[in-house]
Amino acid sequence: MSVMEQSHRGKRFIAMAARTEADLRELAAIPDDYAVLFLQGGATQHFAQIPMNLAGEGDGADYIVNGHWGAKAASEAAPYVRVNVAADSKADDYRRLPPRAEWKLDPRAAYVHYTPNETIHGVQHHDIPDVGEVPLVADMSSDILSAPLDVRRYGLIYAGAQKNIGPSGLVLMIVRRDLLARATRPMAKIFRYAEQAANDSMLNTPNTWGWYLAGLTFQWLKAQGGLAAMAERNRVKAERLYAAIDGSGGYYRNAIDLAARSRMNVPFTLHDNALDAPFLAESEAAGLIALKGHKALGGMRASLYNAVPLEAVDALVAFMRDFAARHG
Amino acid sequence: MSVMEQSHRGKRFIAMAARTEADLRELAAIPDDYAVLFLQGGATQHFAQIPMNLAGEGDGADYIVNGHWGAKAASEAAPYVRVNVAADSKADDYRRLPPRAEWKLDPRAAYVHYTPNETIHGVQHHDIPDVGEVPLVADMSSDILSAPLDVRRYGLIYAGAQKNIGPSGLVLMIVRRDLLARATRPMAKIFRYAEQAANDSMLNTPNTWGWYLAGLTFQWLKAQGGLAAMAERNRVKAERLYAAIDGSGGYYRNAIDLAARSRMNVPFTLHDNALDAPFLAESEAAGLIALKGHKALGGMRASLYNAVPLEAVDALVAFMRDFAARHG
Repeated sequence: MSVMEQSHRGKRFIAMAARTEADLRELAAIPDDYAVLFLQGGATQHFAQIPMNLAGEGDGADYIVNGHWGAKAASEAAPYVRVNVAADSKADDYRRLPPRAEWKLDPRAAYVHYTPNETIHGVQHHDIPDVGEVPLVADMSSDILSAPLDVRRYGLIYAGAQKNIGPSGLVLMIVRRDLLARATRPMAKIFRYAEQAANDSMLNTPNTWGWYLAGLTFQWLKAQGGLAAMAERNRVKAERLYAAIDGSGGYYRNAIDLAARSRMNVPFTLHDNALDAPFLAESEAAGLIALKGHKALGGMRASLYNAVPLEAVDALVAFMRDFAARHG
Repeated sequence: MSVMEQSHRGKRFIAMAARTEADLRELAAIPDDYAVLFLQGGATQHFAQIPMNLAGEGDGADYIVNGHWGAKAASEAAPYVRVNVAADSKADDYRRLPPRAEWKLDPRAAYVHYTPNETIHGVQHHDIPDVGEVPLVADMSSDILSAPLDVRRYGLIYAGAQKNIGPSGLVLMIVRRDLLARATRPMAKIFRYAEQAANDSMLNTPNTWGWYLAGLTFQWLKAQGGLAAMAERNRVKAERLYAAIDGSGGYYRNAIDLAARSRMNVPFTLHDNALDAPFLAESEAAGLIALKGHKALGGMRASLYNAVPLEAVDALVAFMRDFAARHG
């Protein structure tokens, strides 16, 4: 009987769920005073649910916007909290991070929200920003479990599953338990993280298949040597690809500030965009798929999520050199 | 490459989604002025989202409560709409439906909500109630696609996928398009059905695996002869099981009003509850699993969803006769 046919109230599912949480707690060294939730709705829904839960009516929250998703998080939060965009690198086309010294944080903010890795723009925070006593909220949809997590530095971490965890339709959340008491405004129980925490994320039927696959991913990550091993592997993967771009004499280009380059998503352009179509056609024919950049940016994007092996990066680099040689 | 690895923005996924919607429209004869949505959050989340979308601030809505889920729908709606429980059969332990003549409907209600089939209590409406011009909203989580749908009689139909459609984590919604304009209160875009309709249910990454499996189910239903054929099969399945219960001389009992007996969920008790444990152990050993009743009711429950073949019902009936003969 498949996990999809089993009741989430049954012993086998409950045991699977408990093992999955235990594996994640071990992998990411999650302290006991943090709850782990397996939710639905995608990260986008939680752009709205986070202020519903973490901010009282009339409260403000600080948003650091360093790419598409951070801007969207601020926009979806606006019906529920007074959004203060404390820093924004849009004027730089999100090619660098807003320098920490320029962030206009409000010490009375309910929380500070940021996006450690921006999937579309290919920028990443390589250090956790210090925001004092205000809880730091991180949308880690595209870099969770790609490196060790220092959970104590955050009030709430959340991530859509579909990059580094499992299939879409599942959201992983790690939240400091004391913050759960903040949800005092009227809302349905199903939106209250405290209720989900009290019910082991089974206030209603969860995404059982997604949860099960997340568990298999956590086991795989443990077998790979854990998050430190993944971080090292991801560092090497990214370095090889950036080296190929930077060493191409301008044939390929990545415009992101060196200190903010993402290890998960590497956008790049060709020196002549007339070459985009043949690059995409030939790379796909060579088994290198989904390299087309986001429509907002054009060009190419290579995503180097945990599941991408070093061999795939080497194959891409070899293809890029060959393509440049052939197309001159 | 599995559907789980594909982008929901890719041609193959978009084509699959379009075919799935077309198959459903054909199966259930859905008129063009109804949108079909594939959402997340389970039916429980939509207990809250429906009033957010269909009722203005200050509006009232009528709720018909004929079981556990209808009561929960009313409770989760309460933060968003003035809930009027227009009929409630709790005083009868939900063993019958509240007679239509006794419903205290408000002609100014934003909508009338009811639960055509109650999974736990095993009661089912076999006729669509006439509620005049007020839009009728139906939570069909446990009986959708079990019989032909007269979509025009409803304003909004919704169903968690995990009974008759596919894996959990997906909600199917069929909604009259003109009702989508009612969502005027402040809320995040992700909660607005109109936005999901305008974006083909891809305002954010959907549950791609659930959607794909729903599509396979719709194809299977077409191959079975469609919903009329399913209805006939479900009628025969239910009749055989109720006949075995009613013909057992009181060894097995189902206390539901004959006119309201569900064709999807058949709760029954043994004449002596000391027999429950051996019944469950022996039935499981015979390959008849998950017969334990909901904890709120005790006893047994056989669910006869579309995926249950007639042979499974015959095997259960044979086991029940054999058990009664052996345990006397």
